[in-house]
Amino acid sequence: MTIKVYGSLTTVPTRAVVLLCLANNIQYELVEVDLAKLEQQTPEFKALNPAGQVPVLDDDGFILPESTAILRYLAASRHLPDHWFPVDVKARACVDHLLDWYHTNIRQTSGYVFEKAFRPRLFKREPDLVAIRLADGKMNSAMDLLEESFLKAEEGRGPFLLGSSQPCLADICIACECTQTRVLSQADQEKIFTGRDKTKKWLELMEKTLEPHFAEVHKPIDDLFRILEAARSGN
Amino acid sequence: MTIKVYGSLTTVPTRAVVLLCLANNIQYELVEVDLAKLEQQTPEFKALNPAGQVPVLDDDGFILPESTAILRYLAASRHLPDHWFPVDVKARACVDHLLDWYHTNIRQTSGYVFEKAFRPRLFKREPDLVAIRLADGKMNSAMDLLEESFLKAEEGRGPFLLGSSQPCLADICIACECTQTRVLSQADQEKIFTGRDKTKKWLELMEKTLEPHFAEVHKPIDDLFRILEAARSGN
Ligand SMILES: N[C@@H](CCC(=O)N[C@@H](CS)C(=O)NCC(=O)O)C(=O)O
Ligand SMILES: N[C@@H](CCC(=O)N[C@@H](CS)C(=O)NCC(=O)O)C(=O)O
Repeated sequence: MTIKVYGSLTTVPTRAVVLLCLANNIQYELVEVDLAKLEQQTPEFKALNPAGQVPVLDDDGFILPESTAILRYLAASRHLPDHWFPVDVKARACVDHLLDWYHTNIRQTSGYVFEKAFRPRLFKREPDLVAIRLADGKMNSAMDLLEESFLKAEEGRGPFLLGSSQPCLADICIACECTQTRVLSQADQEKIFTGRDKTKKWLELMEKTLEPHFAEVHKPIDDLFRILEAARSGN
Repeated sequence: MTIKVYGSLTTVPTRAVVLLCLANNIQYELVEVDLAKLEQQTPEFKALNPAGQVPVLDDDGFILPESTAILRYLAASRHLPDHWFPVDVKARACVDHLLDWYHTNIRQTSGYVFEKAFRPRLFKREPDLVAIRLADGKMNSAMDLLEESFLKAEEGRGPFLLGSSQPCLADICIACECTQTRVLSQADQEKIFTGRDKTKKWLELMEKTLEPHFAEVHKPIDDLFRILEAARSGN
């Protein structure tokens, strides 16, 4: 049975769900929801998710919002290899820690990118300097934790999050959040990743480990980068 | 083996963890972390949770931050009754949906309460009107979803979240968030709950179902209400 994923690959949480599907050969159909056209606000969409947000999963009539709930559900219902979401209670709790941390920490990367790139360039609205500063602060503390606490390859541990030798669900959603920076100007990207070599290495490893799927789900935002670059140089 | 919970009952996520322990007779020791004294920033505390936030669980040396990860871990490791965190894959996904929704939605209730009551009355700082407006908007949309979508008793379903007949982990953490409003002035509390009869009824039911533990974990914020009332009438 093919599942339906309502969403858009330019958004982090949709990308995470689709990447897990591709990496595990789960058949899916992506039902494009155009956020710029506010399609997430239509009565039809709100019947699926009253919160009016993507992604939403439809598994043969079973409707589920929230990306991290969808990732956990797919891991359990499709019996994915244990490393994605271990059955061992303590190992699973460590993955849950990062999946829960994601929402109020590294997730601000999207907020920063929205304020810095999408709002002025795509939606032609005035930059909101207070919002940029707030999101910037939160993104940076989260990136610091990633670099200094969650990546442990240099301590002789595995190269994935929490020192694992294979990626888990949290590697997927946290990596897909970090890559939202790909639409920023080269200078802004460098500013974010300078001094964060472990994070850079880990992102490269994720890309390589999940080849060719990682590149595939990132095509839409890589295209957006080019559109925004044209807008930037046109200024 | 007695677990340790590092935190403070005046914070929502600590309260949720302690309430689950009390309701299930899990032996715990609350290690008070005084946020007003910035004890969450000490090197000792950051060795437990580099994010510098409470709560943190210590289960015989197994250290776990993030309240919702702790709730899931306790449900699994202590084999709590199934209704808290069902084993059935779809039923569990529905609980995960709400646990994940919690972080970026209803969680803003604490933000609102901080800006509206703690910042001016407890910390004697100027109210930040922009922050109040933002948190107010987010809290209200979340409360609307709770009232209009997640409580289904009037549709002939069970009285707990998602129409269940017994509470789940999400009832615990979402209820403990709603009750953070208890420190607000009576007028502000009424403004929030007027027209939200299902939510009011559900909170009363939670209190009754988890008697006497619900009242017990709320004692510290009920005391804070009285302190803030004195500050209010002194103005
Ligand atoms: N916590 C949710 C967040 C979902 C979310 O933020 N979706 C955004 C796109 S990235 C959305 O649909 N925004 C449209 C809107 O809020 O109107 C998840 O992880 O799925
Ligand atoms: N997502 C975390 C949030 C924890 C949190 O926000 N803790 C606050 C108290 S409510 C804290 O420790 N704040 C102190 C600080 O950030 O310095 C959880 O659910 O446990």
